[in-house]
Amino acid sequence: MKNYIKHHEWQIIEEGFDPHLNRISESLFSLGNGRMGQRANFEEEYTGDTHQGSYVAGVYYPDKTRVGWWKNGYPEYFAKVLNAPAWIGIHIKIGRVSLDLAKCKVTDFRRVLDMKQGLLHRSFTASLPGGKKLKIDAKRFCSMADGEVGAIRYSVTPVNFSSAATITLSIDADVVNKDSNYDEKFWTEISKESSAGLSLVTAETKKTFFHVATGMTYSITSDGKAVKGKVKASRREQYADNEVTIRLKIGVETVIYKYGVVLSSENHPKPKLAQLAKKKLKDIRTKGYDKLFATHADVWANTWQKCDITIEGDAAAQQGIRFNIFQLMQTYTGADERLNIGPKGFTGEKYGGSTYWDTEAYCLPFYLGTSDPKVARNLLVYRHKHLQKAIENGAKLGFTDGAALYPMVTMNGEECHNEWEITFEEIHRNGAIAYAIFDYIRYTGDEEYLFEFGLEVLIGISRFWAQRVNWSADKQKYVMLGVTGPNEYENNSSNNWYTNMFAVWTLNYTLKAVEQVRKRNTARYDKILAKAKFNEKTELAKWKDIADKMYFPEDKQRGVFLQQDGFLDKELLTVKDLRPQDRPLNQKWSWDRILRSCFIKQADVLQGFYFFEEQFSKDQLKRNFDFYEPMTVHESSLSPCVHVILASKLGYKEKAYEMYLRTSRLDLDDYNNDTEDGCHITSMAGTWMSVVKGFGGMRVNDGKIHLTPYIPDQWKS
Amino acid sequence: MKNYIKHHEWQIIEEGFDPHLNRISESLFSLGNGRMGQRANFEEEYTGDTHQGSYVAGVYYPDKTRVGWWKNGYPEYFAKVLNAPAWIGIHIKIGRVSLDLAKCKVTDFRRVLDMKQGLLHRSFTASLPGGKKLKIDAKRFCSMADGEVGAIRYSVTPVNFSSAATITLSIDADVVNKDSNYDEKFWTEISKESSAGLSLVTAETKKTFFHVATGMTYSITSDGKAVKGKVKASRREQYADNEVTIRLKIGVETVIYKYGVVLSSENHPKPKLAQLAKKKLKDIRTKGYDKLFATHADVWANTWQKCDITIEGDAAAQQGIRFNIFQLMQTYTGADERLNIGPKGFTGEKYGGSTYWDTEAYCLPFYLGTSDPKVARNLLVYRHKHLQKAIENGAKLGFTDGAALYPMVTMNGEECHNEWEITFEEIHRNGAIAYAIFDYIRYTGDEEYLFEFGLEVLIGISRFWAQRVNWSADKQKYVMLGVTGPNEYENNSSNNWYTNMFAVWTLNYTLKAVEQVRKRNTARYDKILAKAKFNEKTELAKWKDIADKMYFPEDKQRGVFLQQDGFLDKELLTVKDLRPQDRPLNQKWSWDRILRSCFIKQADVLQGFYFFEEQFSKDQLKRNFDFYEPMTVHESSLSPCVHVILASKLGYKEKAYEMYLRTSRLDLDDYNNDTEDGCHITSMAGTWMSVVKGFGGMRVNDGKIHLTPYIPDQWKS
Repeated sequence: MKNYIKHHEWQIIEEGFDPHLNRISESLFSLGNGRMGQRANFEEEYTGDTHQGSYVAGVYYPDKTRVGWWKNGYPEYFAKVLNAPAWIGIHIKIGRVSLDLAKCKVTDFRRVLDMKQGLLHRSFTASLPGGKKLKIDAKRFCSMADGEVGAIRYSVTPVNFSSAATITLSIDADVVNKDSNYDEKFWTEISKESSAGLSLVTAETKKTFFHVATGMTYSITSDGKAVKGKVKASRREQYADNEVTIRLKIGVETVIYKYGVVLSSENHPKPKLAQLAKKKLKDIRTKGYDKLFATHADVWANTWQKCDITIEGDAAAQQGIRFNIFQLMQTYTGADERLNIGPKGFTGEKYGGSTYWDTEAYCLPFYLGTSDPKVARNLLVYRHKHLQKAIENGAKLGFTDGAALYPMVTMNGEECHNEWEITFEEIHRNGAIAYAIFDYIRYTGDEEYLFEFGLEVLIGISRFWAQRVNWSADKQKYVMLGVTGPNEYENNSSNNWYTNMFAVWTLNYTLKAVEQVRKRNTARYDKILAKAKFNEKTELAKWKDIADKMYFPEDKQRGVFLQQDGFLDKELLTVKDLRPQDRPLNQKWSWDRILRSCFIKQADVLQGFYFFEEQFSKDQLKRNFDFYEPMTVHESSLSPCVHVILASKLGYKEKAYEMYLRTSRLDLDDYNNDTEDGCHITSMAGTWMSVVKGFGGMRVNDGKIHLTPYIPDQWKS
Repeated sequence: MKNYIKHHEWQIIEEGFDPHLNRISESLFSLGNGRMGQRANFEEEYTGDTHQGSYVAGVYYPDKTRVGWWKNGYPEYFAKVLNAPAWIGIHIKIGRVSLDLAKCKVTDFRRVLDMKQGLLHRSFTASLPGGKKLKIDAKRFCSMADGEVGAIRYSVTPVNFSSAATITLSIDADVVNKDSNYDEKFWTEISKESSAGLSLVTAETKKTFFHVATGMTYSITSDGKAVKGKVKASRREQYADNEVTIRLKIGVETVIYKYGVVLSSENHPKPKLAQLAKKKLKDIRTKGYDKLFATHADVWANTWQKCDITIEGDAAAQQGIRFNIFQLMQTYTGADERLNIGPKGFTGEKYGGSTYWDTEAYCLPFYLGTSDPKVARNLLVYRHKHLQKAIENGAKLGFTDGAALYPMVTMNGEECHNEWEITFEEIHRNGAIAYAIFDYIRYTGDEEYLFEFGLEVLIGISRFWAQRVNWSADKQKYVMLGVTGPNEYENNSSNNWYTNMFAVWTLNYTLKAVEQVRKRNTARYDKILAKAKFNEKTELAKWKDIADKMYFPEDKQRGVFLQQDGFLDKELLTVKDLRPQDRPLNQKWSWDRILRSCFIKQADVLQGFYFFEEQFSKDQLKRNFDFYEPMTVHESSLSPCVHVILASKLGYKEKAYEMYLRTSRLDLDDYNNDTEDGCHITSMAGTWMSVVKGFGGMRVNDGKIHLTPYIPDQWKS
């Protein structure tokens, strides 16, 4: 855990330059606009420790899988978020000396992320080797008004000298992914150009053949007046720049306005990319930095009006919740149904893939609660677009007749993960995707969605559950064998209560949905039947039978549901029994020891109580919470928020606040020592749920919003 | 399955040259002598498909582990059997044309492995490009009389020409492992020399720093008279040779005798290696090929006298059983307690490691039944030497106070495997190692072994079992959670019957052994107590309690033991229900589907009946065999032999013979399409057990041999 970020209601603030914290700050101060983004890398050259990262939504590379022991059914590749061409470079050279914070004495360093306006602001004074002093003030944003545009206002003031200076403004496509499995580079150059005032590189991804044109233009003022300087436009492999030589005068501010555009073949025809990029560069240069920023800030003002949460009396909590909202909003805007919410957003490239079950289980309620319904709808349509791939994914595992298994991790609908206990067995993800359809319609009343898209997905998922269970002659019940639940500290277990609950819930909801579509839109119903080759008679009867006769493990004496078969054979300890040196378990214990212990990585049975709360009494909730909460180590960032919500419902205010602290400042305070790899974007939605569904007690049911709010003792309002 | 090997009682015969079968033949015709060996690669140059492989027992490289998702507790490296410097090369060049079977017309090709004498014999006529014809007759052996020596008699007769010829006799240490994880080479050169009549390269393994000196000398005769020729001795990086130019005369036989030595720093001081190798080369050249061969053949004659099995009326079966015995005997001679029986012996390098539980469960009974007791004893001492490493291995997984977990795969006692469900959970291996001590003493009466070595190992293993179980408050019994049994088509299951049986058996046997040593060798007993910090009172009481109160899953109605908890929840099908296109399951089904099916990779409960037959009635055996046999797919080479033994006991003669066929010609007929990677050495011991313990019904009990033999209907005697 770190504690270097200054508390402030609207800003993330770092004061003083500590190179050891730089990678963490690069993650925390990241910028994005739903379409592109980048880590808070410096514009100027930096030879110190840094993870340079720019990203373009939807542009990925299928990196050949690395695995120790191959299992039949594993995917051939892992789709990686691509480290993309960078447009931010502004290198400053005074004589032969580069401005490089790793080689200067740096004073008055301040890095601020203004969340209200989506602006990264950095200022410092640097003493170059030799003694020349420069004051720098750099502002940068990725426009929320135009996802292909970014701009920088980079101000340079010599403190104690006058001299010629060379300013290199670059486009650099010679980038590499940190997590490349076989140390390959993923881009090849298509074309480049560089002329006075403009540099542009179009690059292509290997294998996936996405084209991305990244270009820049600029203008320079000195003391407010335009300056041309001597320009040398250069190119080399995957790189283009303008080298501008100007004169810096002591005490006089020179401002470099750099405008960047990033256009991808996902949105434009490949042959027109470069031309369109140049046109856009011309337009935004004409418009100028101030106007571009004003339009951008307007979007943020609108956004905050819809989704802000105000906490009084606790600046850390206030900063935390706004940071979470800010990151979510700049990661996914809902403008494009082909996109989704990657685990690191635009803040890093770890884990790869863009879509986990986090989207449906955590992010969807956030967007339903804060944004236009079309945003959530697009998240759902994304999965509908992948239905065929989900059916193919099921077929690879031996499922037939249109049974759909959505992937654990994906970019394009194909499974990317390759760990049998997760890839093949953590199938509860399918349940969250079905539930999202229900949840969306419950919030929005958009019944049409069910007709147009929802039912097909539900049928595919229900078919999967119907084939995944089997009849136990011994139990005279349906059982589900070989499953990993949300609590990944159990593998290949049988009758995971949460997963069985989701199977039955999906089957019942699909039965209702079939009935609803049949009655309310017969034409569409007939079309779906034909397309899915749906056998109304046998399939519906089978689903009903399974829903009626599913087995649920239970301890009747204690009055609790059992996480899975055999749970009571474990030694039932609590987290308090663990020695501090054994935490976190996933770093200290071998995997078998974790598996046979009772300790829970993240809410499992309790996550089921969160989703299906109407089915259970408060008393049942209390018994299960009291049983499982003490065993839960919360070693997943997705866990504490569920406990906040349930503890709030039970009136366990202290427990709720304790859990809230764990989730809300996870990245800001670098709880898990991994913020340097990027922020935990999807779990940020859980923080929002903690406040809104936990402390606020908000529920949407029967077309109404229900609220049962309370305030943690630590807050004023 | 292939069927190209000619049936013969004492010989493995290939007639006609088929390049597509070459890798398979290279495995089948491999030679070894317990200390070194090599695949049946050609002496002459070969540019066709080949896997060049020479190996030196005990010389390995710790190759950095490759894994998809790291789990805490995984080893850092996988110890690889090393592809070692080759001494066999004899390249022939006529003018500019090399003798290369990939570029010649080859007629009368015949490759014979004479198992009676341990001789590889190859003959053919080659028409070189251009039309020159050569008759070749090549014989090779690795001396069973001196493990550091090999020799070749390579005869060349020009059929239709006379000409000068260049013969290159090489030592090649520039070799590479096929299965190198990161495409590294594992050897560096220490020294080399080459002079007329001798070439020698000393090479060192990276990281492990083994030194191996590989040298050669030779003599050449033409028409029976010594020929000198013009000699050019050369060296290059990791390579040394003699290029001898002689005159070949039409119809006249030229014979090249090449003598190779391989000395390793495991047996000699490093600084003396080269010198000792040169001395040995001089000695063996003086002795000459015929004398060397005679001494070698004598050893085989002695060996066969002790261990031959004669089957009349079934040449395929006769060839099969002799091939299995031959391979085992040339892989491990028992002369060196530091060595063990690798899964591929000297026939390939797949899987790496030298020791699996195969050694104790399969190979030990073979050596006990065929060889001097010291051979089996050395196998046991090998594990005793690794006791400290086994305790460290246990400690890595959180076990304390001297609990020993022997590795799944090892070279030096450290675990090498990195698949959590195997490495951490397939712990029954510990049971086989304990049982081997009992079995050895039962066969040999060597009680001293228990005093000197056995008890320490038993205490370490018993401590492991005592910590690995836990008390189930629910069942009021001890349980063992998170286990993979011999049937690896179940992972992370609980109360695997076989493993629980072995835990209880070990604890009981150790209790007895403690008592025995205490009474019969008090001085030694006190020493062991002190060394192991053994708490007589608490530990013995705890072990007894566990042995008395262990839980065993059972279906009382069917009268069968259950392979593990929850087995009856599965859909209970039989192998007959499977479609042919679904076999073998491990190539056709995804892993989750295999796991939740009832199908069994290899004998599990039935393997327990094999080990502990005295504890059960024939009726119990029959019920369990009839229940599990139909579900067993035998996709491990270690499975069918156990079924032969049990089926024989039950009088299921047809089943026994069917299973025998699956095991005895597994490699010869390439059943699993993988003989090209090397032979399945350890499972060959299972074939021997099929005949001796199955058809022969041999048991050793109470100091007596018991036999209940019968002859399969297909055999005469």
